[in-house]
Amino acid sequence: MAIKSQPQSPLPSPPHSVKICHKMAETPIRFGILGCAEIARKVSRAISLAPNAVIYAIGSRSIEKATKYAAANGFPESAKIYGSYDAVLDDPNVDAVYVPLPTSLHIKWAVLAAEKKKHILLEKPVALNVGEFDRIVEACESNGVQLMDSTMWMHNPRTVKMKEFLSDPAKFGELRSVQSIFTFTADQDFLENDIRVKPDLDALGSLGDTGWYCIRAILWANDFNLPKSVTALPGTIFNKAGVIISCGAALQWEGGKVATFHCSFLANLTMSITASGTKGSLHVNDFVIPFEENQSSFSTATESGFNELVTGWVPIPSQHTVMTDLPQEVRMVTEFSRLVKAVKNDGAVAEKMWPTLSRKTQLVIDAVKASIDKGGEALIENIEAAIIQITRIELLWMGRDAGQTGGVAGAPNNMKMDMLMNMFRNLGSGGFATPNNSNDIK
Amino acid sequence: MAIKSQPQSPLPSPPHSVKICHKMAETPIRFGILGCAEIARKVSRAISLAPNAVIYAIGSRSIEKATKYAAANGFPESAKIYGSYDAVLDDPNVDAVYVPLPTSLHIKWAVLAAEKKKHILLEKPVALNVGEFDRIVEACESNGVQLMDSTMWMHNPRTVKMKEFLSDPAKFGELRSVQSIFTFTADQDFLENDIRVKPDLDALGSLGDTGWYCIRAILWANDFNLPKSVTALPGTIFNKAGVIISCGAALQWEGGKVATFHCSFLANLTMSITASGTKGSLHVNDFVIPFEENQSSFSTATESGFNELVTGWVPIPSQHTVMTDLPQEVRMVTEFSRLVKAVKNDGAVAEKMWPTLSRKTQLVIDAVKASIDKGGEALIENIEAAIIQITRIELLWMGRDAGQTGGVAGAPNNMKMDMLMNMFRNLGSGGFATPNNSNDIK
Repeated sequence: MAIKSQPQSPLPSPPHSVKICHKMAETPIRFGILGCAEIARKVSRAISLAPNAVIYAIGSRSIEKATKYAAANGFPESAKIYGSYDAVLDDPNVDAVYVPLPTSLHIKWAVLAAEKKKHILLEKPVALNVGEFDRIVEACESNGVQLMDSTMWMHNPRTVKMKEFLSDPAKFGELRSVQSIFTFTADQDFLENDIRVKPDLDALGSLGDTGWYCIRAILWANDFNLPKSVTALPGTIFNKAGVIISCGAALQWEGGKVATFHCSFLANLTMSITASGTKGSLHVNDFVIPFEENQSSFSTATESGFNELVTGWVPIPSQHTVMTDLPQEVRMVTEFSRLVKAVKNDGAVAEKMWPTLSRKTQLVIDAVKASIDKGGEALIENIEAAIIQITRIELLWMGRDAGQTGGVAGAPNNMKMDMLMNMFRNLGSGGFATPNNSNDIK
Repeated sequence: MAIKSQPQSPLPSPPHSVKICHKMAETPIRFGILGCAEIARKVSRAISLAPNAVIYAIGSRSIEKATKYAAANGFPESAKIYGSYDAVLDDPNVDAVYVPLPTSLHIKWAVLAAEKKKHILLEKPVALNVGEFDRIVEACESNGVQLMDSTMWMHNPRTVKMKEFLSDPAKFGELRSVQSIFTFTADQDFLENDIRVKPDLDALGSLGDTGWYCIRAILWANDFNLPKSVTALPGTIFNKAGVIISCGAALQWEGGKVATFHCSFLANLTMSITASGTKGSLHVNDFVIPFEENQSSFSTATESGFNELVTGWVPIPSQHTVMTDLPQEVRMVTEFSRLVKAVKNDGAVAEKMWPTLSRKTQLVIDAVKASIDKGGEALIENIEAAIIQITRIELLWMGRDAGQTGGVAGAPNNMKMDMLMNMFRNLGSGGFATPNNSNDIK
């Protein structure tokens, strides 16, 4: 990301003594971190701040690097420092791993982690393609471990509030279109050296990086129904090594719903969603990372029209602000750890919603990539085939769940999606507060 | 437009005695209005409020309708009421006509008006296709009358301020992408009976209506350089009569600049522009008709990045508010009347910038329509051919101007566009005020 260049300073650390005491009572989930990625600094802090998780270990190919990283980022004294990823996976006390490695390494290390019975919080994009991701999913399934991707904004209480608006037939009506943009201006060093421009590391480039969020946002607004077609937009830009650094696509659903997105490393930081429904519309300009950590806003309008002479709007759109006590990445770690704890301590089956959302996002990425490779040809059959494949996997999952929860196996696809969506809608409920000076959604 | 249904009430009228006195001293431009369109109510008020214009006549196919309309909209007592459009054009005291007729009638009445030496303020879309528009332009040229389309937001002082930001290499850098949306939810009566869904009246449907504004915004952000390709997006929706009621397109320029737009009659009022440059970005959510008449806002950001842990933005985008003493449509009438007065009283040649912008907008509309008709095929050669044609027309115009202004005939195309752009940038300068509580662009 376009981080302002500043000297690395220790993370704001939680009051350890209090926290350890509190966490011991709750048997926190013990995290191992694979690698010393920049993004892992933020997630390490989130693990520290989550009430049900602790940093237990970090592994790097260089033990010196790991030691330095742990010190620079305020890791607890007790944290194990390992000179390899394998050592983290072999530590029997590690419950879960956070995997911020380059995408090309996900399949190797996520599959291995699953085989070592470690639950997995996986950076996005989850894989180089859905085939690789399915191997990760299968490894997690067979080993009974939880899998979740690290798409933090999904866990922001604002996201829940926005979804409430989009799901309200009286306020938003039926979705008609979504436009999403995520760009940032990468500097020369990034464009030459970052892993996200290297074909052997993050071969999906800006599509896998910022495009992931746009596609997730579009699917999220569409209740995770896959589009019937995906068409790359003209104007894809590649670097010399053939990695995408700017692109976009148009998506289309039955019934005339449409979406577009644009993602790139070449334009000033922009993170927008505009969703228009038959009755309402929604705008947000910082959907991935809010302007401020502890509060975030969005605007909505319902049944917008004009005054009599068409010289102004009636009503004027409303601005909504949602406060959060815990940053979105802390809420993500907390939710992941809650699911892990249910599997580890209460014998629950690993939650299937999160890997389903990951898979659908990856599937659309694959379709965009394929359309780009074919010069902008619409990919309809591929997506439909993929929907069938997803349905099969979901049925398998639902079949397993059914044995425990009392039978939804064989339910029609929309019922299953309803279940998933209800689970999703319930996430984070009660976890937000609205300041007095904002216009809350009525 | 999606006007709230309210009983029609008289327009807020200007203090006539004062105004007439003031206007007589200035020899105001005398407007004739062709037809009793709903949009003409707003423009009639604008003519009343403009310091250099007066409503002189109105003509309708029914004199009763015209009489009722003039009374309901507070027309001056002196206004002539005619039972035909021809009668307005035959009145030697009418200087200029405002033409809000259905698009299919533009060619007949605009050409006739030009032949009767009436200057023309023409509703958008200016024609059903660029061929028709060229006949209107040629009639205006040969008869030495001013032509301007009625795209009101172009005359808002906010538009000038936004353009200043987009033109600033230090604050915005080089444009990379533009996304524009203009939708509104038409009710059943509109979808069945409005002229904008009738193939014999406004055959361009939502593309000609709301799409016009999106395309204008995209061209405006691109300094009116035409794209090298135009590709319709999948998901066009037609009504039973084959008129477009929802569509979109992707546009592409040399050097990787891209744009998309979406326009429709099927989703809640949304009017957005998001422009991203190498250094900055701009958002506006009410670009066609501001939320409020006398002030309007937009947000900008320059060199956006994140704080050290990537948990917030540095800096946070700025909100800008621009006040206007005169509504945008009044400023449009004032500017048009100023140009008419220069031709009428000072022997000036009619201004060529406005018809050039109309023509380019119409040209892109034609390309989108053609791409829709061809099932989403990219239209590259057509646009390039059209650019050559535009260049020829501009050269002709410039050649004429050159005789008077000291010679830009034969100047390269970019020089001519620079001239046009400078003229455009100067419009409205000095006409805005910024309130104390806003963050003005520094």
